[in-house]
Amino acid sequence: MAAHDELTDRQALVDLTVAYSYALDDRRFDDLDDVFLPDATAELGRHLEGRDAIKDRIRDALVPLDVSQHLVATHEIRVDGDRATGRCYLQAQHVRTGPDGPTLLMVGGRYEDRYVRTTEGWRIAHRALVVLWTNGDPAVLGA
Amino acid sequence: MAAHDELTDRQALVDLTVAYSYALDDRRFDDLDDVFLPDATAELGRHLEGRDAIKDRIRDALVPLDVSQHLVATHEIRVDGDRATGRCYLQAQHVRTGPDGPTLLMVGGRYEDRYVRTTEGWRIAHRALVVLWTNGDPAVLGA
Amino acid sequence: MAAHDELTDRQALVDLTVAYSYALDDRRFDDLDDVFLPDATAELGRHLEGRDAIKDRIRDALVPLDVSQHLVATHEIRVDGDRATGRCYLQAQHVRTGPDGPTLLMVGGRYEDRYVRTTEGWRIAHRALVVLWTNGDPAVLGA
Repeated sequence: MAAHDELTDRQALVDLTVAYSYALDDRRFDDLDDVFLPDATAELGRHLEGRDAIKDRIRDALVPLDVSQHLVATHEIRVDGDRATGRCYLQAQHVRTGPDGPTLLMVGGRYEDRYVRTTEGWRIAHRALVVLWTNGDPAVLGA
Repeated sequence: MAAHDELTDRQALVDLTVAYSYALDDRRFDDLDDVFLPDATAELGRHLEGRDAIKDRIRDALVPLDVSQHLVATHEIRVDGDRATGRCYLQAQHVRTGPDGPTLLMVGGRYEDRYVRTTEGWRIAHRALVVLWTNGDPAVLGA
Repeated sequence: MAAHDELTDRQALVDLTVAYSYALDDRRFDDLDDVFLPDATAELGRHLEGRDAIKDRIRDALVPLDVSQHLVATHEIRVDGDRATGRCYLQAQHVRTGPDGPTLLMVGGRYEDRYVRTTEGWRIAHRALVVLWTNGDPAVLGA
């Protein structure tokens, strides 16, 4: 029973990270309302306070792109009652298409998360993106 | 119990996508008989009707290669009784080795699937490959 | 019950592979004591006998690097009582940073594993790395 509950919780927490990826890549930013707590914090290149600030930051980064793909894998999750921590690896491809064809920037990194169980399910309370490497043209992200 | 059944179904559906990858990359194309319904359809660069047409298409694409690797991750699955839908991200590396060494073409994309539960287990009823980006030499796939 | 036990075992086996990745990339090599049997064997470029030899090999390969990222996904696992076999795909990024910036070598491959259940949990009895492709500068790994 305990093991079963833990599997269910862990699947729900992986689902949360997967929902984040598809919300970003489908440009359905309001889906992040079901991913982050209203008062969530994040480190996404800069420190962000509150879900609205997180959504604005993500929108600003992704709207100029033609395609993005946030592939996540290698999930490590620890559940402790109604709190949990987790990390996973990501490879996030960023694409801008110009007159000469597409230009790519791959960002390899790690998400480090804290989660809280609410009456509506698990939510991210804090997410930090640790960039490990990049490959491609930094201009894709406006750098 | 319901949650447990759903976890079991979801694991079986991820297994199906994993079996697809290894069938392709091991060139064990007949293993796809346990992955697709006989009357399955697919969009793999072109519209395909029936498992045999799907197998032929995959065989034609992969046999000329020296190596392929269909890494899949970021699985989103929704089970509804004996039907399910799912999507996942893939990074498919394609390699041809010539006198000057290997030439690579990475294809980044998404599989969008519909599944059906049969008496022998879950099967893919429809799979669409959505290519999001490529990186490398298009000649690897004969383009 | 049987299905539930199998899900728990499979999650534990994926966890083992994930723990391996983070032990390597965090340079916490002694965490591998909880991953491999003391008399484990491995094929990591060369044949290795015993956990200490495996740890030495990994340490020698990774300590010279500035960053590594062993992303694993696409897990195929078969449990048979207190034994199991598994394989997964990896994309392992290797980074050295010099005066002109970072140099990258990505290694794409497959881990092929045999596992044993012990009183302390599942452990890797044998791991073989099959390299499928590389992309980047081989000098990053000293080749």
